[in-house]
Amino acid sequence: SSLQTKGWALDEWRHHQRDGKGLARLGALIEHLSEDDPAWIELADRASLERQWQALETLANEKQDDDLPLYGVPFAVKDNIDAAGWKTTAACEAFAHCAEADATVVARLRAAGAILVGKTNLDQFATGLVGTRSPWGAVPNTHHPDYVAGGSSAGSASVVARGLVPFALGTDTAGSGRVPAGFNNIVGLKPTRGWLSTKGVVPACRTLDCVSAFALTVDDAWAVAEVAGGYDEEDPYARCNPMTAPVGMAEKPRLAIPETLEFCGDTAMQAAFEEARERLSLLAEMVTIDFSPFQELAALLYQGPWVAERTHAVAETLEQAPASMDPSVRTIVASGYGYSALDYFAAEYRRAELARHIQRVLADVDALVVPTSPTIRTLVEMAEEPIAYNSEFGTYTNFTNLADLSALALPAAFRDDGLPAGITLIAPAWHDRALATFGKRWQQQSGLTLGATGRSLSDVIQTESFQPIEPSSTSIRLAVVG
Amino acid sequence: SSLQTKGWALDEWRHHQRDGKGLARLGALIEHLSEDDPAWIELADRASLERQWQALETLANEKQDDDLPLYGVPFAVKDNIDAAGWKTTAACEAFAHCAEADATVVARLRAAGAILVGKTNLDQFATGLVGTRSPWGAVPNTHHPDYVAGGSSAGSASVVARGLVPFALGTDTAGSGRVPAGFNNIVGLKPTRGWLSTKGVVPACRTLDCVSAFALTVDDAWAVAEVAGGYDEEDPYARCNPMTAPVGMAEKPRLAIPETLEFCGDTAMQAAFEEARERLSLLAEMVTIDFSPFQELAALLYQGPWVAERTHAVAETLEQAPASMDPSVRTIVASGYGYSALDYFAAEYRRAELARHIQRVLADVDALVVPTSPTIRTLVEMAEEPIAYNSEFGTYTNFTNLADLSALALPAAFRDDGLPAGITLIAPAWHDRALATFGKRWQQQSGLTLGATGRSLSDVIQTESFQPIEPSSTSIRLAVVG
Repeated sequence: SSLQTKGWALDEWRHHQRDGKGLARLGALIEHLSEDDPAWIELADRASLERQWQALETLANEKQDDDLPLYGVPFAVKDNIDAAGWKTTAACEAFAHCAEADATVVARLRAAGAILVGKTNLDQFATGLVGTRSPWGAVPNTHHPDYVAGGSSAGSASVVARGLVPFALGTDTAGSGRVPAGFNNIVGLKPTRGWLSTKGVVPACRTLDCVSAFALTVDDAWAVAEVAGGYDEEDPYARCNPMTAPVGMAEKPRLAIPETLEFCGDTAMQAAFEEARERLSLLAEMVTIDFSPFQELAALLYQGPWVAERTHAVAETLEQAPASMDPSVRTIVASGYGYSALDYFAAEYRRAELARHIQRVLADVDALVVPTSPTIRTLVEMAEEPIAYNSEFGTYTNFTNLADLSALALPAAFRDDGLPAGITLIAPAWHDRALATFGKRWQQQSGLTLGATGRSLSDVIQTESFQPIEPSSTSIRLAVVG
Repeated sequence: SSLQTKGWALDEWRHHQRDGKGLARLGALIEHLSEDDPAWIELADRASLERQWQALETLANEKQDDDLPLYGVPFAVKDNIDAAGWKTTAACEAFAHCAEADATVVARLRAAGAILVGKTNLDQFATGLVGTRSPWGAVPNTHHPDYVAGGSSAGSASVVARGLVPFALGTDTAGSGRVPAGFNNIVGLKPTRGWLSTKGVVPACRTLDCVSAFALTVDDAWAVAEVAGGYDEEDPYARCNPMTAPVGMAEKPRLAIPETLEFCGDTAMQAAFEEARERLSLLAEMVTIDFSPFQELAALLYQGPWVAERTHAVAETLEQAPASMDPSVRTIVASGYGYSALDYFAAEYRRAELARHIQRVLADVDALVVPTSPTIRTLVEMAEEPIAYNSEFGTYTNFTNLADLSALALPAAFRDDGLPAGITLIAPAWHDRALATFGKRWQQQSGLTLGATGRSLSDVIQTESFQPIEPSSTSIRLAVVG
């Protein structure tokens, strides 16, 4: 039997769930989900659904409808994010533990009515951009099973792209919320650091980690971030939005593209980006910038002392159960022991200089646009060069969190071989909404099918407006500082 | 001959310099200054004055009077801050180099008309709170020559306290802009990190360093910070004022004092603080708070990986000319090699937690009030226990920059032995102006003589209002964030 809810966007789910038979609809959904699917690490059973539904009914009796914008909407969570009563594995059995409480982001989504149907597979400890570094198996690309899904949030991207759930949470330290969005033709919102709480998230680099949102549409990714986000005083790295960033984008924005682009020899990806660039030039004024400071900063993330954050996060597993770790992940994480505090500060000073330079460059444009990844690889290729090919995927993502930027990965084009190619919009911290504004315009203009569902944007016309982003030229600065 | 300008406040200098004979007045001043005075490392000669005066005349021809708020006003600069054409020694001959350009803060003061008359002595590499760790000699206390002046900005505090110059720049990483203010009965403004540029300043802990201002009055310290401060895009750690902090203080503010106070057995300091506390209770509602999170954070500064920033800053001198270093400074700075990047991140995570806790505590009050130092020592005592006694002085200062706070050290009382005792107001980042508002009120109420000049506040009644701080209850939030 086919899955009736396949590819439903957030608002379709919400609309139908409000109409009734919500629990039965979720029951039908989980019938379709299988733990043999390498995208999942753990799935809700019927008892879990019933418990959650009961809690939702209690909430619904206490609250107004407006307070439950995700009433009965199913979602998935990357398995490095805690959900009370579920195991958090981070894709490492020796590390796994049962979470006593929801991560703040999960708690906020559940308080808005959302129902957790599964925890998703990932590159172990969120260390990777490939989706193959997991004892739960490699997650195949949703458009071609020989290819990688990208990672580390591989499972979350996969289940969204296939339309099983309307949204899923990922995390993004080096690009884990963007690369798998690009490889699976969906939207990946990498919010400003500190907007979405990381309380209850297994750290990768705790000073840089972001929780991210995957959805089929920009509207849905934005709606999820709005519900999951907000200052969390229990997260020491949470930040308040200073409300000084633009919340929209000019009718004809100024977008920067790197002067020289690297595709690692992948001509299909290059052609797809060329196509995207041409379509972008219909919507925006295009300029080019020197990309070398971005590249230098990107290299600091893995070839620099921040890898010691990963070491710190999993030191116990690394020391007591090294055999439980993926060999590539183990090699990377162990390299953190090699850095001194002096190495850290030398790198931090350089980071600050490069970040300042990058912020100056970005001040002259509305956003930077890059390919989400320069290339993609098959599962076979990835097994041959697990570290080098992974690094290539981070070419256009690794610098983002070190420079304190916001980013939005968008579907852009299909390659001749049928694989998707993505672009990513990048801007300073708190420009998330401005990026979403343009992202929505882009998605409307490009007319691509959504994820791997075969549906188009016009199939999911919003039945009710759900915190919509106006694709207008609104640009408000609430304060001018200097 | 006595020095006519002794103890002149900023506005008196400005008023008289505008009236004419400005160069002659500065000439008379430098006649009174001596390089035998351990407060100085280098002094302007007549040729330097004449060059600076000529540059000022050129400026005056180009600019309006209002653009030269420091017209012809002499000042001193701690010798870890660059001034073009002057040596920067950081109190270490082997490290010394001639500065090619002004530090941003010096450039801004000169552009406002100020004339640099000397570079001041300091604890070598700004590593100390004592003022004795310098080959240029120990700086004696301005109220009793057997006692220390406090440091590391010892010379700057000394020349301001004696009324030689109306203001001087210091730096403050661990308390170097506050402890010597407290020990010499002057005002020490430790601004929010990133407000005053550190470009052209020899780093101590580069991620934490602040340039600070010393003056006899709160008005003058504030005026200096206003001129010297402002976003500097050439300083990677510069920050924009988000304009969300209160700019004034309630008529009867709520002030916190540590529940238990440490005075290291110094009953005179304890009695002075008790006196200050009683007078504070006339101006404010007093509450007590648990000080242990502040203490835990303070300990991280020297018994933690941030000392590796000092190591990084002077590694070349430490490796190539260790004999040129003060033995205590060398011991401290060399300890930075002992920390790994993992140590750094473990400490950084704890720092972030403690800082968050502290910010929550401070959100319930207008400011924290602490003794500036729990005790003071003689030069003889300091020679006996150069590291342990130094640490005591940092009890109420070391946590401030790690928690991203603003601070204002104020004269508070005189002890029975004639030594001054200070209090320090502390509040979150960008509360500088609110602190200055209350500091002005406090200084008006306390009626103490200024520095070691024998003058009182009423002697220096402002002839013109110079960016005055209104001691009113104005409290504006330009934006509410959440």
